[in-house]
Amino acid sequence: MIVARDYKSFIEARSKLNGSVGFVPTMGALHEGHLSLIKKSISQNSATVVSVFVNPTQFLAGEDLNKYPRPESADIKICELAKVDILYMPTIEQMYNSDELKISAPKIRGYILEGANRPGHFDGVLQVVMKLLNIVKPTNAYFGKKDAQQLILIEQMVKDYFIDTNIVACDIVREPDGLAMSSRNIYLSPNQRIRALSISKALKRGVKMVQSGIYDTNQIKDTIRDVIEPEVDTIEYIAITDRRLKEINSIKLDDTIILIAVKIGSTRLIDNIWI
Amino acid sequence: MIVARDYKSFIEARSKLNGSVGFVPTMGALHEGHLSLIKKSISQNSATVVSVFVNPTQFLAGEDLNKYPRPESADIKICELAKVDILYMPTIEQMYNSDELKISAPKIRGYILEGANRPGHFDGVLQVVMKLLNIVKPTNAYFGKKDAQQLILIEQMVKDYFIDTNIVACDIVREPDGLAMSSRNIYLSPNQRIRALSISKALKRGVKMVQSGIYDTNQIKDTIRDVIEPEVDTIEYIAITDRRLKEINSIKLDDTIILIAVKIGSTRLIDNIWI
Repeated sequence: MIVARDYKSFIEARSKLNGSVGFVPTMGALHEGHLSLIKKSISQNSATVVSVFVNPTQFLAGEDLNKYPRPESADIKICELAKVDILYMPTIEQMYNSDELKISAPKIRGYILEGANRPGHFDGVLQVVMKLLNIVKPTNAYFGKKDAQQLILIEQMVKDYFIDTNIVACDIVREPDGLAMSSRNIYLSPNQRIRALSISKALKRGVKMVQSGIYDTNQIKDTIRDVIEPEVDTIEYIAITDRRLKEINSIKLDDTIILIAVKIGSTRLIDNIWI
Repeated sequence: MIVARDYKSFIEARSKLNGSVGFVPTMGALHEGHLSLIKKSISQNSATVVSVFVNPTQFLAGEDLNKYPRPESADIKICELAKVDILYMPTIEQMYNSDELKISAPKIRGYILEGANRPGHFDGVLQVVMKLLNIVKPTNAYFGKKDAQQLILIEQMVKDYFIDTNIVACDIVREPDGLAMSSRNIYLSPNQRIRALSISKALKRGVKMVQSGIYDTNQIKDTIRDVIEPEVDTIEYIAITDRRLKEINSIKLDDTIILIAVKIGSTRLIDNIWI
């Protein structure tokens, strides 16, 4: 595995890859969730590139940029064991210039849900993903459904800007007890960790309601609220939308996402399920 | 020559081009200025693509989008005679979706000079150029120095977003009497046409001052103002900057641009000279 820390050495290594190239962009602190994306990429492509870059422009003022975990040697080891071809770990200076052109997320879909709670967050996400897609030029790029809105906005970016990469949506990976894998889970105390299980439990309850024929989204949201409200400190949103992130009143099978964002202590957790 | 009017037929035609591809994006109404870019591209590449697209997002409210000239059959003829390989003439629907991601020009360099007089104009220019570069995937793309700020911002976009295209800056083409070629020149009455000559005359006067050893930019700007003020209806700006568009107090040889924007009647004219 080649570890490239600057643009020039990355491009040199990239030029030696033949056939289809899969790409998994990450902010590091790699866990089973990332590994499932990496494995999927390896199984579907001749070569796989992983990037680790904690992107400052997607953190808002006061967010956890500085305390975001950066276990660099563990990340390198994980990629090596997974048989990644190139691990790209650029510095901020390699990625950003002064007085840059900015990307603005769509006025509607970029500023609801996560975007309402973190205004400007997706501008930074799309900015760095566009840069990385242009640098890596992958055939396929892998994103988790856990960050559903991010995935949907990246799919839109690729369409709006005619970027020649296929975006592959990957299922959420969960701990055996149901908690969605996240780099932020390490912040949870043992007790908070247990309370966090209410999130995936509530989503499963929602799915069961749909299976039993209840399609009224307000009724489902009320039940989800009842499950998580006693366990979490803040409910940021419970939303039921179509795959374009438009809120819906009635479940549309194969075109629905139930999304939840909460805070437990100072840790923000998101989860969702695609129906 | 293939005339492609939709994305799919363009991509099909593009896939058959081998070797280096030159690209000349235009808004049509092709004149000698465009033709010089096209000829340069043809001389430097295996194949040349020209696009004609009057991009709505770079026109501000109240600007001349609807009356912008669209001599379609003449444009096709000119490209055919020049031996262009593909002429891409997409519709607005082929280029834009609803609730799109936007590009924002740099906060400083995007909002001075032309950007101060036309706030948001460069957002639209950069948006469409990024789309077109991603669609056409040219080796080299040709832009005129006449739109100096546009050229400089596009060079920055390619750098900021790691776009794999070489931007080629092309000299301004002038009428025999000195007037810079522009699609907007046709709006000038015979009398206005004569008054417009003051612009290139003033620029030449500026160059002569530099040649004679006068490097004080305020002194040069005063002289330029004296030349054009009696002839034009509005002076929007007279600026002397370096190649990064930063205003300078003293001429730096090989790193200076003198830029002028005026209105004669309701027609806006820009011109510049690189020293």
